Amino acid sequence: VTSRKPSVFFYFDYISSNAYLAWIRLPEILARTGFELKPVPVLFAGLLEEHGQLGPAEVRPKAIWMFKNNLRKAAQLGVPLNPPVHHPFNPLLALRATSLPSAEAGLGALIRGLFDAVWVNGRHISEPAVVEDVANAAGLDGAQLVAEAQTLEAKTRLREQTDCAIDDGVFGVPTMQVNDELFWGYDDLPYLELHLAGEDPLDPEAVAKWLLGRQPSAMRRRFRT
Amino acid sequence: VTSRKPSVFFYFDYISSNAYLAWIRLPEILARTGFELKPVPVLFAGLLEEHGQLGPAEVRPKAIWMFKNNLRKAAQLGVPLNPPVHHPFNPLLALRATSLPSAEAGLGALIRGLFDAVWVNGRHISEPAVVEDVANAAGLDGAQLVAEAQTLEAKTRLREQTDCAIDDGVFGVPTMQVNDELFWGYDDLPYLELHLAGEDPLDPEAVAKWLLGRQPSAMRRRFRT
Repeated sequence: VTSRKPSVFFYFDYISSNAYLAWIRLPEILARTGFELKPVPVLFAGLLEEHGQLGPAEVRPKAIWMFKNNLRKAAQLGVPLNPPVHHPFNPLLALRATSLPSAEAGLGALIRGLFDAVWVNGRHISEPAVVEDVANAAGLDGAQLVAEAQTLEAKTRLREQTDCAIDDGVFGVPTMQVNDELFWGYDDLPYLELHLAGEDPLDPEAVAKWLLGRQPSAMRRRFRT
Repeated sequence: VTSRKPSVFFYFDYISSNAYLAWIRLPEILARTGFELKPVPVLFAGLLEEHGQLGPAEVRPKAIWMFKNNLRKAAQLGVPLNPPVHHPFNPLLALRATSLPSAEAGLGALIRGLFDAVWVNGRHISEPAVVEDVANAAGLDGAQLVAEAQTLEAKTRLREQTDCAIDDGVFGVPTMQVNDELFWGYDDLPYLELHLAGEDPLDPEAVAKWLLGRQPSAMRRRFRT
């Protein structure tokens, strides 16, 4: 029996504390509106490179602002948030493991386990032993999952997921996609919920008019030519 | 008689629709909490260059997301938002004029007038005639203001305001500063209000612990070396 609920795609990377917080809040939003969540791991660094952008952790005052902002959100949600000592870190193994077909049986528990490993327990999920341990706790075969995650097929899958997300206009994490509509970041969740509930305040005609008429009159030099 | 109310500094650039929306919402927040607003024009492009960042208007899918997001916010606030045809544009003259001591008598009306010129009426405030017109409507001497705005002193003042903001950790607009605490963006306004009301959910010890312990374990190559 396949689900007949419409889907919200959730593009994420474990490196993002906003994604961790969104992952905690999304189930109640989707339950209220009758949508199904489909997680799609993507490499945040790949999105940044595509657009020549820096991540918040790479701009020191922004990193400080963001952790404070996220600590406030976590406090309001009543969930723990302990920014890990090792950040930024390499999330590839965890993202590849999460993308495996063989992870599907315990997918929700695996994602929550890996988010918690980073953002609650300060564990270093770049290390295979940590991913294996979290996968075991999620009821999966951790050793097998870690081995599979290092195959060419697993690497290609994550790269394709990231490329497809870029093609769909995803530029950051977390991004929530409903049909062609993209919602970015934890702060966009209220607008996602309005959209899902059929109460989106956005006037599509205003958007169309602007997209057609745009004529930038001053552009800075780009970092990449 | 000088004001004895504590201040919230508002760093802004007319190029930002989030700053336009924040400027509309801030008076009620400050009235509820008993603070005084002190606007500080800064050149957003200067903040971006300092940190090697791109602005949202320079990343096409982000520009589209942001205008949609801001249109939703404007609809909820019940205020008009007509993204201008000419965007990005050169905001220097308008920012320099706003920073002049001779603008102080009509400062609030000038700022709202210039924001409305861009974000409601689609006027091109890079043009001196437009700034002059808006200044006149704000009860100021528009011709004199535009002339003064083109002096070396006015140029230096804006540059110094931008540099001081950077020194204080400002990386984007709008930023609201209360003592050493920075709140960034329209979405941060609820947290600013909690902070002003003495109900900030942030645990300063968690911040201090993280700032001391941070050890990045994977950094990407920087665009600028």
